[in-house]
Amino acid sequence: MQRTDRLIRLTQILLERPGHPVSLAHLAEAWGVAKSTLSEDVASIRRTLLEAGKGTVETLVGVQGGVRYHADVPTAEREGFLADLAKRLSGPERVLPGGFVYMSDVLGNPYVLDAVGRMFSTQFWSKRVNVVVTVETKGITLATATARHLDVPIAIVRRDQRVTEGAAISTHYVSGSNRRIQTMSLGKRAMPADARALIVDDFMRAGATARAVVDLLKEFAAEVVGTAVFMATSQPAEKMVDNYFSLLRVHEVSAQGADVQPASFADNS
Amino acid sequence: MQRTDRLIRLTQILLERPGHPVSLAHLAEAWGVAKSTLSEDVASIRRTLLEAGKGTVETLVGVQGGVRYHADVPTAEREGFLADLAKRLSGPERVLPGGFVYMSDVLGNPYVLDAVGRMFSTQFWSKRVNVVVTVETKGITLATATARHLDVPIAIVRRDQRVTEGAAISTHYVSGSNRRIQTMSLGKRAMPADARALIVDDFMRAGATARAVVDLLKEFAAEVVGTAVFMATSQPAEKMVDNYFSLLRVHEVSAQGADVQPASFADNS
Repeated sequence: MQRTDRLIRLTQILLERPGHPVSLAHLAEAWGVAKSTLSEDVASIRRTLLEAGKGTVETLVGVQGGVRYHADVPTAEREGFLADLAKRLSGPERVLPGGFVYMSDVLGNPYVLDAVGRMFSTQFWSKRVNVVVTVETKGITLATATARHLDVPIAIVRRDQRVTEGAAISTHYVSGSNRRIQTMSLGKRAMPADARALIVDDFMRAGATARAVVDLLKEFAAEVVGTAVFMATSQPAEKMVDNYFSLLRVHEVSAQGADVQPASFADNS
Repeated sequence: MQRTDRLIRLTQILLERPGHPVSLAHLAEAWGVAKSTLSEDVASIRRTLLEAGKGTVETLVGVQGGVRYHADVPTAEREGFLADLAKRLSGPERVLPGGFVYMSDVLGNPYVLDAVGRMFSTQFWSKRVNVVVTVETKGITLATATARHLDVPIAIVRRDQRVTEGAAISTHYVSGSNRRIQTMSLGKRAMPADARALIVDDFMRAGATARAVVDLLKEFAAEVVGTAVFMATSQPAEKMVDNYFSLLRVHEVSAQGADVQPASFADNS
């Protein structure tokens, strides 16, 4: 196998499953090359991706010749992406009754989803997340993209109980928007053992829903390492969950449009 | 920029957004190399990916120097993957009341989702799909993965009407499983103009839900080019929708487990 072929194949293998360990020892055997040769190839790939701001290739300690790709978004692309999103979401045509902002098109756009998945996974990479949890329905596309980049499963909290989830644990909470008692339910088989959960959702006001998920996950003895949301309101500034991270902030919504801004890292707690 | 760096970067750019056109003219300018040089690089990448069964790089007619990656799953991996899934889903511990099979763990597994997304996109690649449509909740993860590989948006049909979707069109249908009248609703802004929709869902029995989506999409003047489901029942053999494709067939469900088999291409209509 020629060096150029190896570089293309190695890049493909690493990028196909972000966050997933790849064994160089195994590839060296399959391709009939020395492991040290593959290590040099990985060094080239790491350097090229780092220079492009597209993430890095980590060497795993304790795994014989294990490496994995961790995706990122270059700073300039990130800034342009968030500024563009903020502008798109500010238009008066997006304002819905009750001060909601129409976002379903954005939450269904494959480029947006992949970029958000990269940013959320980068933000919580060090937390050793082993499951992404979301509440149906609008956060599921974001959760899917994030789980792909973290290489972990997704668990979906339901608003009702479904036979298809098997035995489930249900809890009740008071919703932030209409003060009514709501139910949420999660299948008992949905969580891994020793779960370290990242909650992903599309929108957060005070954080009552995320708080309810935290409480539900206590029933699973899961640890919640953080909450990542696409958009949060600037008020109340104090949310009902810790370690929350949002990409966009909405300050005010009126008939003239929404005041949406990229969230600065300082905004995030 | 050295050839090895170009090959790594080009592979990364192509694989990052499957199905999305990449302009070689633009890259040639940005990197200060001849477009013919990049065309040779793309030829190397195409050959290497094809040999590995990982899909191909298409040259786009009518776009100056446009290319795009179309992902696939190597035949041996596909067969092993489906056989393994069929076995995993056949266990008696998965049988739920009503003859349902517990699949939520599989539908939340990032490797499964990516592989299914590749297979669905390959199957319907020639149909020029421009939107993937699913019904909440369990099909959303599959739809997200499929839409990524087709580089098209996702539209989510809701079981209720939500203020966050804006003005919506609702229809009613009789569900296949409990013969009750159900409502489904899709936001008016959710569909592109001249929509060519692929319906994606987790499970199909007779196809009443998919049929209801087809009828709902008529209200949007959308053309449905096919329906892709993860698992279908072998009976009734005649489904209520045309051009349906399933990866797995379930023949019988009893307390001893489910008889799940990879669907042969001949099973699909």
